[in-house]
Amino acid sequence: MSDTAPLHPLDAATVFRPGPDGSLTGQTSPAYWNMVGPFGGITAAQLLKAAMDHPARIGEPVAQTVNFSAPIAEGAFTITVKEVRSGRSVQHFYAELVQGETIAANATMVFARRSPTWSHHASPMPDAPPAEAVPVLGKKPPLAWLNAYEFRYVSGLPIMNSAAHAKPQSASSLLWVGDQPPRPLDHVALASLCDIFIVRIFQVRGLRTPAGTVSMTSYFHASAEELAAQGTRPLLAKADSIRFGDQFHDQQAELWSDAGKLLATTTQVVWFRE
Amino acid sequence: MSDTAPLHPLDAATVFRPGPDGSLTGQTSPAYWNMVGPFGGITAAQLLKAAMDHPARIGEPVAQTVNFSAPIAEGAFTITVKEVRSGRSVQHFYAELVQGETIAANATMVFARRSPTWSHHASPMPDAPPAEAVPVLGKKPPLAWLNAYEFRYVSGLPIMNSAAHAKPQSASSLLWVGDQPPRPLDHVALASLCDIFIVRIFQVRGLRTPAGTVSMTSYFHASAEELAAQGTRPLLAKADSIRFGDQFHDQQAELWSDAGKLLATTTQVVWFRE
Repeated sequence: MSDTAPLHPLDAATVFRPGPDGSLTGQTSPAYWNMVGPFGGITAAQLLKAAMDHPARIGEPVAQTVNFSAPIAEGAFTITVKEVRSGRSVQHFYAELVQGETIAANATMVFARRSPTWSHHASPMPDAPPAEAVPVLGKKPPLAWLNAYEFRYVSGLPIMNSAAHAKPQSASSLLWVGDQPPRPLDHVALASLCDIFIVRIFQVRGLRTPAGTVSMTSYFHASAEELAAQGTRPLLAKADSIRFGDQFHDQQAELWSDAGKLLATTTQVVWFRE
Repeated sequence: MSDTAPLHPLDAATVFRPGPDGSLTGQTSPAYWNMVGPFGGITAAQLLKAAMDHPARIGEPVAQTVNFSAPIAEGAFTITVKEVRSGRSVQHFYAELVQGETIAANATMVFARRSPTWSHHASPMPDAPPAEAVPVLGKKPPLAWLNAYEFRYVSGLPIMNSAAHAKPQSASSLLWVGDQPPRPLDHVALASLCDIFIVRIFQVRGLRTPAGTVSMTSYFHASAEELAAQGTRPLLAKADSIRFGDQFHDQQAELWSDAGKLLATTTQVVWFRE
């Protein structure tokens, strides 16, 4: 179909060529390039999409842990997805993203055929003005992936100068965020959105030092149907960290629909130097 | 040494017999038995210890994700640990715990040779009276693992009756907790302590329904030396959940030293029925 609209960059980044052994070959995406490799979120999205494409897959994503074990170079990579265990309604996968001889990332993923149960929201969504009332962040560092998202900071906009802040700033941020160009929400997009927080240590110190996510875990609390209902409207995203030291820090975050439902909880451990 | 004191149950539970292929055979522990299988924390501890025993291991544990993929039966299991990638200071492992043909649990783990950097605590520990001022929980359901820990609830003691609460209770709990019998703290003990929270949905509904952790991720923020300095004194533990529905709920938790340092952050996704 020659007159089809071009693929959204997220969809283009998750197109794979299946090999005879069931492995999937993909390409890094220029649209999601970070400083010296791909934005971690797109790697999470690629690993999740590879599991979604597994012929034995049942149900929808519930949990994903991605470990970033080596730098990912520009170009081709191969993802292998192993079916670890399939119960009647819950299924476990293990995946590796390989370049040459190197396992550059691996992931465990849980899928489930969910059915209705007792339901309850124990906490309300964080207080925030509606997205339309918050200005879109215009000035961004020249990194491709920052242009793949639209950011509207309610609080905790990271300010990075040439010198560190005199006193550590708050580690907390609250913002509206969405795919740019807009794209209807699904689990693959949500997996990537879980990584859109600027590394907390940059914000706290006001200084950009070598740093990167080592491991990220995301839990998905909404069905494909609920995500589709969110459409292209921004999500409310909140992140915080507690302890920084000896080269690592934690990060805890939440992503909420504009209808006030928790869509994902996500946590990561970040390596830094100095 | 025939006059050596008997091993602490945690140490007894993490004794392995190495096979010629490098796999480790262990045994489930009666001291950590739960309703129909082992307490998840002891499985996490066993998987972490297996990686610590890996001949190529460098450094100390930073991150662990454990997926509980099938029921673990009483008796023997085999753990295989694969070295996924070793950098100069950060190392990634993947482990599987197998019984017969079934992968009953798997785990990804990150180890690191940490070195001093800029350090900062962005939040203070939660407000709580000292452990000595909080009574030890005496009356517990007859599950072995509950006797492997000493609990002192500051708030959020789960009350389970025969009927559900008329209104959902808070999902939050704050308590002091320690190994019972007391044991000097290390990463293996900490990995298990990350799972000591009563399933949040029991507390919120006041009802025990079929439920179990599907995936748990823990980040370790303290060195072996710092954990050793904590000795056998209880840790302050805090847990909360936000969204319950369609068979799953989230849980976020923190474990603090009595000196006010964050020792671990941990998160899990819990399956439940009804």
